[in-house]
Amino acid sequence: MSEIKKKFTDYIRDLQDEICGAIEKIDGKTRFREDNWNRDGGGGGRTRVIENGRVFEKGGVNISTVYGELPDPIKKHFDVEYGWFWAGGLSLVIHPESPMIPTVHANFRFFELYEDEEMTRSVDAWFGGGADLTPYYLWEEDAEHFHRVFKEVCDLHGDDFYPKFKKQCDEYFHNAHRGEGRGIGGLFFDYLRADDTRSSEDWYRFTTDAGKAFLKSYLPIVEKRIAEPYNPAQKYWQEIRRGRYVEFNLIHDRGTLFGLKTNGRIESILMSLPPQVRWDYDFNPGEGSREAELIEVLKNPREWV
Amino acid sequence: MSEIKKKFTDYIRDLQDEICGAIEKIDGKTRFREDNWNRDGGGGGRTRVIENGRVFEKGGVNISTVYGELPDPIKKHFDVEYGWFWAGGLSLVIHPESPMIPTVHANFRFFELYEDEEMTRSVDAWFGGGADLTPYYLWEEDAEHFHRVFKEVCDLHGDDFYPKFKKQCDEYFHNAHRGEGRGIGGLFFDYLRADDTRSSEDWYRFTTDAGKAFLKSYLPIVEKRIAEPYNPAQKYWQEIRRGRYVEFNLIHDRGTLFGLKTNGRIESILMSLPPQVRWDYDFNPGEGSREAELIEVLKNPREWV
Repeated sequence: MSEIKKKFTDYIRDLQDEICGAIEKIDGKTRFREDNWNRDGGGGGRTRVIENGRVFEKGGVNISTVYGELPDPIKKHFDVEYGWFWAGGLSLVIHPESPMIPTVHANFRFFELYEDEEMTRSVDAWFGGGADLTPYYLWEEDAEHFHRVFKEVCDLHGDDFYPKFKKQCDEYFHNAHRGEGRGIGGLFFDYLRADDTRSSEDWYRFTTDAGKAFLKSYLPIVEKRIAEPYNPAQKYWQEIRRGRYVEFNLIHDRGTLFGLKTNGRIESILMSLPPQVRWDYDFNPGEGSREAELIEVLKNPREWV
Repeated sequence: MSEIKKKFTDYIRDLQDEICGAIEKIDGKTRFREDNWNRDGGGGGRTRVIENGRVFEKGGVNISTVYGELPDPIKKHFDVEYGWFWAGGLSLVIHPESPMIPTVHANFRFFELYEDEEMTRSVDAWFGGGADLTPYYLWEEDAEHFHRVFKEVCDLHGDDFYPKFKKQCDEYFHNAHRGEGRGIGGLFFDYLRADDTRSSEDWYRFTTDAGKAFLKSYLPIVEKRIAEPYNPAQKYWQEIRRGRYVEFNLIHDRGTLFGLKTNGRIESILMSLPPQVRWDYDFNPGEGSREAELIEVLKNPREWV
């Protein structure tokens, strides 16, 4: 196995341990359960899910490294007739119990394509990933904190990274059929390939730095809002908004649809769906309410830092 | 407007009134609310939704007649560069409160394509529709009743109709990513066009007869199960299964995706989504349980009549 794949495999395993440990510590009640699985055709993963915690109603922090012949839908997507691949990554979604704490999603991945089954003749390779925040109630300082942490990571690697990946995030996590963002954004990057100015090693450093910043971006927000009181109507609103989260993941998210079409492990893919969800007909928050204020920001993405 | 469009428009309006009246009568507590809406570009609809009833937790019975220039995604789908259309139909989904009463869906529609904006030069026209049942607990006699009613309608119009449209229903309402049917099927038909053996008038009669049979297919099942007791674990199971319903509608259903891509009225399209839904990680009913018995039938569609 190439050096970069080895390093990245170790990296995602360590990052999963670190993130799960920190989440369990804050939760204080419930621990992750672990499922190790193998993929027909090559590779496998380690799915970790926490449910019915004190702070976290449902969350998954998954890693997988899979390889083999390209599934047909991917051959079609890349317009190739044959080919082999290796894909490794960490993917997480955390749905807190309290509507005052935002849901968060992050993903860090490496993908390589080969001419041969032995994976010795690489024809393409790239990094991708990002992190985005989905609040149910808006605290501007929380959105600013989340963006600031990732801006700092970006700025270490390239001046244009933050504005570019922030914009891509707003564009990607967009419920087009509702005309609103899934949340208040963050970073989204993909197809980060070696070129004249940057090596694979450079992209490795950027992607892994972003992953390492995840806990710093999210945990202070959890801690800040953990004692915030809320009432049943606010919980109800969270469940309505979780419906929008489901709509995005099932209608628009390339990662989810890709997984479903390539016979991925269904339960690991759909662990991203929230635990309890509502769809009311034509639910509209009152004018001038905090709920309406959130919608306003989702319809008009802001510059947070 | 052509004779067949006029007749079909009257038909769906009357059928909506009849179905809503019967549903309200059984519910006994709550009435449908009505939203009349207009479509930019031509036409509109009458959406009727019932929520938080005694028997029905959420349901919609909608009609619409829309027309105008073909939206771009449909032009692409039909591989034409210009064209106008007229589409009219009734669509309903009923989600009962009790997990002992099945969810039901039905749809009856007419679609016509034209060379000209004035809709005088028709180039194609067809009927489509069907009805299917989604139980949370299986009573074989209920599945048999539902299928028998629609088989009787089919048999009046063509010997091969029931086997063909029953099979198409099993194939269409299939959660491929789970390897299971959405429910226990019913009828699904589409592109019923005039040809050497049958006129548009024949297909009109078949489609409208199927629509007229809807209440007879569903109400006796509601009445039979309305007093069936259930416990919180069974309600929980219903909410888990409703998650599969959402997965089908958002990932696979052509009607839903078509509506979302052609700027349909979002709230009328997504009224089909169940009111309260759960996604637990890797939820598996106990072996030999009634819940497992349902899954078994969903994985292996049966002949019911």
